[in-house]
Amino acid sequence: MKTYAVIMAGGVGSRFWPQSREKSPKQLLNIFGDHTMIQDTVHRLNGLIQNENIFVITNQTQKPLIQKQIPAIPKENIIDEPFGKNTAACIGLASVIVEAKDNDAVIVTLPADHLIQDVESFQATLKKAINFAGKSDSLVTIGIKPTRPETGYGYIQIDDKSGSEDINKVLTFAEKPNLSTAKRFVESGDFLWNSGIFIWKAESILDEIKNHMPELSDGLEELKPSIGTSNFKSVLTDVYGKLKSISIDYGVMEKSQKVYLTKSDFDWSDVGSWQTVYELSHKDDDGNAVEGDVYMMKTFNTYIRGNKKFIATVGVSDLIVIDTDDAMLICDRKNSQDVKNIVDSLKLNNRKELL
Amino acid sequence: MKTYAVIMAGGVGSRFWPQSREKSPKQLLNIFGDHTMIQDTVHRLNGLIQNENIFVITNQTQKPLIQKQIPAIPKENIIDEPFGKNTAACIGLASVIVEAKDNDAVIVTLPADHLIQDVESFQATLKKAINFAGKSDSLVTIGIKPTRPETGYGYIQIDDKSGSEDINKVLTFAEKPNLSTAKRFVESGDFLWNSGIFIWKAESILDEIKNHMPELSDGLEELKPSIGTSNFKSVLTDVYGKLKSISIDYGVMEKSQKVYLTKSDFDWSDVGSWQTVYELSHKDDDGNAVEGDVYMMKTFNTYIRGNKKFIATVGVSDLIVIDTDDAMLICDRKNSQDVKNIVDSLKLNNRKELL
Repeated sequence: MKTYAVIMAGGVGSRFWPQSREKSPKQLLNIFGDHTMIQDTVHRLNGLIQNENIFVITNQTQKPLIQKQIPAIPKENIIDEPFGKNTAACIGLASVIVEAKDNDAVIVTLPADHLIQDVESFQATLKKAINFAGKSDSLVTIGIKPTRPETGYGYIQIDDKSGSEDINKVLTFAEKPNLSTAKRFVESGDFLWNSGIFIWKAESILDEIKNHMPELSDGLEELKPSIGTSNFKSVLTDVYGKLKSISIDYGVMEKSQKVYLTKSDFDWSDVGSWQTVYELSHKDDDGNAVEGDVYMMKTFNTYIRGNKKFIATVGVSDLIVIDTDDAMLICDRKNSQDVKNIVDSLKLNNRKELL
Repeated sequence: MKTYAVIMAGGVGSRFWPQSREKSPKQLLNIFGDHTMIQDTVHRLNGLIQNENIFVITNQTQKPLIQKQIPAIPKENIIDEPFGKNTAACIGLASVIVEAKDNDAVIVTLPADHLIQDVESFQATLKKAINFAGKSDSLVTIGIKPTRPETGYGYIQIDDKSGSEDINKVLTFAEKPNLSTAKRFVESGDFLWNSGIFIWKAESILDEIKNHMPELSDGLEELKPSIGTSNFKSVLTDVYGKLKSISIDYGVMEKSQKVYLTKSDFDWSDVGSWQTVYELSHKDDDGNAVEGDVYMMKTFNTYIRGNKKFIATVGVSDLIVIDTDDAMLICDRKNSQDVKNIVDSLKLNNRKELL
């Protein structure tokens, strides 16, 4: 029984504007260090999953860039969706493609744009989950032990009387909570952060899609005969045109009775905003994290990502400053979630050159 | 008796960095409206002083730009100092040049980079001062009635029992005061803002330079025979090389017993910093004053001067943001005086390209 990976790399990451653009989305940026997030995601699987068994689901715009950034992955494994239809369709598509290649496949599905630094612990957790998923028809998710009452993440409640110490049955999925609920979750000990990493047999997830998302299942059945043929693309476009845009959490995971969770305690962040990047960055004594040609005076707790231009700051605190060739963001750290609203406004105003 | 103007235009205005540079100093920028500050300064004299009687004292770098910006002023009236030696030397130089042309000249000496919008009131005040200075050997300064306890200006105390309602003898010059002193000054009614505008006969100021700055006077005597000859430049360089850098206020005005003040109530600002520009700008309902391609979200009381690049701000207040081709300033409004320290730091670090 072989293990495969499906890396979901379709998003733009509009909270990382102006650095992230449709043509240079978050996962293709080197937000931390020298490698891009998708390169780190592939490297993190090194030794656990062979390159020829790693698939990437993306879109037409990103496909050539991804092929360039991860040349060790076979070009044909990088698959573009005709349109984004959320994670349920993406996972369904990837699963039928992998299943066509290997009927017994166990698949690790994971986002391209998360930060995990403890690779050893990450792989150890995955091994347990792969082992469990491979011997059952269960859908296994990775739960991160919460280190703070984070309101920006979804939570998963486990039945801590079930299963082993590491693998528990899932009771409920909880959306992003408010602070008091998040505090209660963390104190209870049976809520974990939803990492968005899933492990299952291709057969298991396709069965549960059939049970809970029959329309998607029908579409995938329609698609199957075309896999590996020249009319795959046109059938895929037809099928995708009819699909609803639904997340795998909402479409399957929250409904299925076969969901389990593997507890992990590796470091993890979805790197959801510039504020998160600031938090994860090395800061100087004044709490500043800076890249580029920058001069700071009376400046504190500020994140600056310079570009070609010299930037001078005086008397400011708690700012995020991102410079690019054609646009600059100046944002209070507490407002970093609002950056996506700038992108929405740019769309409304048809400022395509800035998207 | 003819009236002449001497416009002092040698400074860089480093508080206006990154817009002001050695090659594009404050007085050559259009900080307000369509005209540059020196153009406005010349226009403001229109009807009062003939163009051929207007002189500009500047430096070598600025001279060609000034000739270009005010083509109506004869080229030979734009005189470059070999080095900046503060206002006493500048005024001495201008005075001997004007005196060589017209022995009876009355000279209005004024900075190139102040903002005065009420031209009618400005000219009415000047006329009174010109009249008084022309009939006496007095040094007349223009005092602005203070509208607030400004700590950024120098003050002049008048003897309000002397002279007419408009012209009073000066008792003392006071440096920039602290807030409580400034409040006392404003309440007293006999302290006025020092506008840096002076009116005197060429003869009067040269006599008082002789009395209080004999070294400068000797230098000017040495220079006189060369005026209008081909070796003027080399003599000027020799003479300037020996001069001390002293302001006319410190060198003459504070010592002379012949100083009078003409009260004025026209609007006046020395436009000393970006903060002043913000104060003088038209603001929208959120207190923002913006130029350029800018998107503001939850942004208040902020001044933005955009350039080629799109700028988005979120969740910020009381900022000054100045974008230029090669440098950007992000500064709290209360720190706008610190901008000159950035320029000092750039000098120390030999960042000539940014000066």
